[in-house]
Order: sequence, then structure tokens, then C-alpha cells
Amino acid sequence: MNPLTIQARAHAYTVEPFASIASALTSVAGRDKALYLVDRRFRELYAAELAELLPEARVVELEASEGAKSFEALTPVFLDLLAKGLKRDRTLVVIGGGVLQDIGCFIASVLSRGLRWELLPTTLLAQADSCIGSKSSINIGQYKNQIGTFYPPHRILMVPGVLASLPDDEIRSGLGEVIKLQLLAGESGFRELMADLSAGSLRDVALLSKWVGRSAAVKQPYIETDEFDRGVRNLLNYGHTFGHAYESATAFAIPHGIAVVLGMLTATCISAHLGLAPAAHFDELRRLLAPWHQPYGDVLQGASLDAILAAIKHDKKNTGDTVNCILTRGFGRMEKTPVPLAEVLAPGIKDFIQKRLYLSA
Amino acid sequence: MNPLTIQARAHAYTVEPFASIASALTSVAGRDKALYLVDRRFRELYAAELAELLPEARVVELEASEGAKSFEALTPVFLDLLAKGLKRDRTLVVIGGGVLQDIGCFIASVLSRGLRWELLPTTLLAQADSCIGSKSSINIGQYKNQIGTFYPPHRILMVPGVLASLPDDEIRSGLGEVIKLQLLAGESGFRELMADLSAGSLRDVALLSKWVGRSAAVKQPYIETDEFDRGVRNLLNYGHTFGHAYESATAFAIPHGIAVVLGMLTATCISAHLGLAPAAHFDELRRLLAPWHQPYGDVLQGASLDAILAAIKHDKKNTGDTVNCILTRGFGRMEKTPVPLAEVLAPGIKDFIQKRLYLSA
Repeated sequence: MNPLTIQARAHAYTVEPFASIASALTSVAGRDKALYLVDRRFRELYAAELAELLPEARVVELEASEGAKSFEALTPVFLDLLAKGLKRDRTLVVIGGGVLQDIGCFIASVLSRGLRWELLPTTLLAQADSCIGSKSSINIGQYKNQIGTFYPPHRILMVPGVLASLPDDEIRSGLGEVIKLQLLAGESGFRELMADLSAGSLRDVALLSKWVGRSAAVKQPYIETDEFDRGVRNLLNYGHTFGHAYESATAFAIPHGIAVVLGMLTATCISAHLGLAPAAHFDELRRLLAPWHQPYGDVLQGASLDAILAAIKHDKKNTGDTVNCILTRGFGRMEKTPVPLAEVLAPGIKDFIQKRLYLSA
Repeated sequence: MNPLTIQARAHAYTVEPFASIASALTSVAGRDKALYLVDRRFRELYAAELAELLPEARVVELEASEGAKSFEALTPVFLDLLAKGLKRDRTLVVIGGGVLQDIGCFIASVLSRGLRWELLPTTLLAQADSCIGSKSSINIGQYKNQIGTFYPPHRILMVPGVLASLPDDEIRSGLGEVIKLQLLAGESGFRELMADLSAGSLRDVALLSKWVGRSAAVKQPYIETDEFDRGVRNLLNYGHTFGHAYESATAFAIPHGIAVVLGMLTATCISAHLGLAPAAHFDELRRLLAPWHQPYGDVLQGASLDAILAAIKHDKKNTGDTVNCILTRGFGRMEKTPVPLAEVLAPGIKDFIQKRLYLSA
């Protein structure tokens, strides 16, 4: 991918490609005093390479989990970073996937009311989607992602090579967001992506890296035009209202990006049912996307419809008996539509799951 | 005071005077669904007046204390507000002094990544100083005010009448910041303030309200020019490096604004010692300000010099063996100066306290 500069309220920031972890980390601003917040598994995986790059006295290691995203779990991380010298004039370097990014972003945005941070995203989901867009999300009690800030990293260090070590399901989860962005971009990008993808794609770093770049190109105008998600950026939630509910109702047994694929199919199914999209569009999508969500469609068979509906109802974006859904009229024609929960969404989701409409007819 | 509009990165906001609590609270935007975070003592004091204005189901009451400003203490407040329906499309109304403002601002800035809030400041300190400027401050472990955000209220509802019910020490604490702002503004404003103040001033709401307005007029250009406190806004910290340390080393036995008065005298004493300010300037200030900090100068006699120096060293603004102090060359001539901690500050503070230099010669 080519280097990018992205505008945001707090500060403009860059996305810069690097050939190796070492070249990325030696480029950090204020490296001699920087603090590092590092995903534990990633550090173990790249132990030899990281040993020389990360001085032990300035490293805080963290195990990525949803449970880590609470004030209770964050407090010792804050204290560890403070004890190791993090303050206003230091850079915080975050190395990890979405959870580390959420935590690192939140810490960088509120410590000393905002300090410099740089991000090395280690998953396809983080590289292709979450690393740009400014958002952090923290959980509180039973409320997921209700707390957060808009505070992008000052630099994003993109190392395609790290994708080689990811398990298949993590790659497929990232591809879910890649697919979403190309569906938003229009028919030609989506068809090119489908033509590129095959079983072998999961291990093809050059191909994945191409689609990381293409994803950023689609996402950038949405987040620059509407950083605070009050208008057009809402469309990036295509598949997410349902996807989040599927994750929550299965106790996160479905990886996020795969839940989004199932969520996009649900949205398209309901769009066809409402006469917005042609039935043929839904039929084509469920045929083309089936390889990219299996076997997780069937995991939904075990989820309670009530739990799914409750999760949708508690989504922070919903404010009454209708739910603001991103529906579709076809490739690149997504739109925000209020949909009655009891009359339309509940039976639509029930059919989608019970009749296995996520599979090809 | 006259209505004001203040520019900030997150949003412009207004300061609007009201003749009564009722007229202020009935003006809240989205009042029929607003949530209220209210200082417990204030609510008890104005129980009859507030009963009709605050619907119980949408009120969260809080006891103001430094201990309330931690993630641990904040979590049940967040959960209570969420359970009572606070979300993106609701207004949070905060009624209280500095602690409630810190907590309310932090909650409003991170819940749903930022929601609308309005503030009714109930102390002189909050009205004259903290309510404008965007900042929130939260404590973590032993680190005071290390966590925070820049997120001003959307409206500030100024009700001078509430000052009538404050204890003398709270008025004097607020006057500390009023004095600081007039010292920054220059000689004529400071002399007018000194001429206005007398023992009776503490109960003269019209007079206090005049100086609330004058304080905002001095502070506004500093915070609009340098909202994020990287340059000229630093000067508003005049007296604060020492003041914060005095508060901390006496376990907060000294009210904040009074500690600031003692801190300004310390800064002026050291400025005179370094030859920056005429000795006569320090002598005049300690004579004029003595009525506004007694008997708290003597409370410092019980504080450990080591604890004071440790607090200064751990201040988030300081990064080495020198301390960035706001010193002074006279009225309206404050400047940021790095001062060696061991060689200059330690003996200067020791003399100031042990020789009771805060009193008139």
C-alpha cells in the first residue's frame, strides 16, 4: 500500500508501510523514551525479533480479551505505564489487534488529557479496518463499547509480514470487514475482490496487503467527512447491528468480521423482504459469501432469538421501538432506515437463522 | 454578568446568567429526557426548590470528594446513569462544584464517545474559574488529576444566587482564583478587586457576581488561544505548582483556591529572590493577600517539606530535575521559567514556610 495522511479533529495522522517489524519500530518518534503496550501472544510469537527492540523496563504486556476492556482491568495497566514513566512528553507505542488498539487509544486519549501514540496493528481486522477512524471502545458492566473517545494514533506502522502468522479464522474475520468495504464501494471493487479470493488467499500476504490498502482507500473519505459518526459514516455499520447482536448472543463464539458477514446477509435479506433490494441480489450475495462465514452460520442455531433482539435493542445507536438499520438497494447503495423491531426485524432474523438463509438456496 | 460564547475544539459553548435555579433548569435542552448528576449537599440545601425540577427517576446523587474522582468510584455512577437511560441523544445536566464538574465532564466526554451536557456551577470556584476551559481531571492510584479530557459543557447556567448559601471558606477558596486572574490581568484590575473586597464581601452576592464576570473575561482569551495548555494557557497555573503540592502535603486540609494564594506568594517570593520581581512587589502582595489565606498559612507548618517537594516532582508538567514554574516580574508579567528543584525551589519553599513569609513583614 502507499503511505496515506488522514485528517482528524485531534490531529492529522499517517499510515506508513514497513518491510519489517524492526524497521517500523526503529522509526518511532521519541523512541529512546517511548513506552510499549504489547499483545502478549504477539510478543511470544516474535520473541527473538522483539527482544532487541523493546526494552523490558518500558514494556507493559497485555492479554487481549473483551474482559481487558473495562475500567477495572484497565486500572493496573494505567498504573504500570505510569510507574514505568509514561507522561505527557513520551510516546506510547501500541502493538496488537483491535483489543489492544481500543485500550491503547483510550489510555493515550485520557492520560495527561492526550499524549502521542503510534500503532503497529497485528491482525488483518486492525490493518484493514479499525486502525483508521479514531475510535476507542471500552465496556462497562453489561454495556459493551459504551465508553470511548475519538483519538487516532499519530502514526500507523503497517507491517504486512505480520499477517503470515495469523490463524485462518483471524484472517477470515478481517476479510469480513474487507468484504463490507468493497460492498459499500460498489460492484466492480466487490467483483475484483471475489475474483481474487480463494482458499489460498488466507496465506497470501501480498494479496491481503493489496486489500488492506484498498480498504483504507474506501474508508478514508467516510471518516474524514464524518469523523464523529453522525451522518454518512453510519453506513460503515452495514452488517454491524446484526453482527454485534450475533456476537453477543453467542458469547463471542463468532469472530467479529465473520459476524459482520452474517449481519450483512441478514440486512440484505431484510432489504429484499422489504422490496428495497432485488431478491436476486440477496441470492447472489449468499452464494458468493458462503465460503467466508462457514461454519459460523450454524453457530447461530444455538443462539436465543430473545438474546439477539435484546442486544439489538440495547445497542447505543437505538432509541425506541424502531431500530436504525443500514439496509441496501444493491452494490454501493446502502442507506440508514428505521425498521420496526417487533414487526419486521424479529421475524426477519428468525427466518434468516431458522431457514438457514445464510446458505445458498 | 453578560452572556458569553466561548470557542473550543469540541464545540462552542455559552455562559448564560439566570435569576434563579428554576429559570436555569427549565431552560435545559431536551429537558423532558435529561439526566441529572447532582451534588448531594446542594440537593439537600435546595430540596424544596429542586423537588419539582428534578424527576427522581432521572437523578443520580453524588457526594463530592477527591475519592469520588477514580475509575473505581466512577463505575457505579456510570452504571446508574446508563440504567436510568443516559445515552447519545440525552442531555446530562451536572449541578455542583469542581468535583462534580470533573466527574460530569469525564462521563459526558467518554459515554457514547461524547454527549451533550450542561453545567450549573454551585461554588464560587466553579463559577469564577473552572466552569470555562474544557478540562476534566480524574485520579488514578496515587496519581492525582493524571487522567482527563478536554470537553466543555454545551451550556453553563450561571445562577449567582446560589453563592449565598456557601460557607465562608468556600467563598474564600473561590476568591483565590479570582485574585489570581486579576494578578494576571494587570495592576488596575487587581487594585479594583482589592478595593472591592472586605470582610463583608463574602456575603455580597452582587459583588461576587461582578467578579465572576470579570474572571471569565480575563480567562477567555487564554483558553480560546491555547485550549490544550501547550503555551500561553500555562500562565493560568500561576500559584498552582506550589498550591497543588501544599494541598497534597496537607492531605487537602487547605481549600484549593487558598492553597493557590499561598502558591502565588511562594512564586512571587522566589521571583524576588531570583531578582525577577522587585522585593517591594512581594512585600505588597503578602500584605494585601494576608486576609485571604489566613489561617491556612500556618497549616503549612505541619506539612513535611519532603512531601511538598515529592508532590512538585510528580506533577505531570515536570519532566526532570528542574520544574517549570510560573514566576512573575510584577502585575500581569508572569512567565514560565525552568527552576532547579534542589538548588532553588527547595530552599525557597523552606524559607517561605519556616520564616512565615506569607505574613506581612
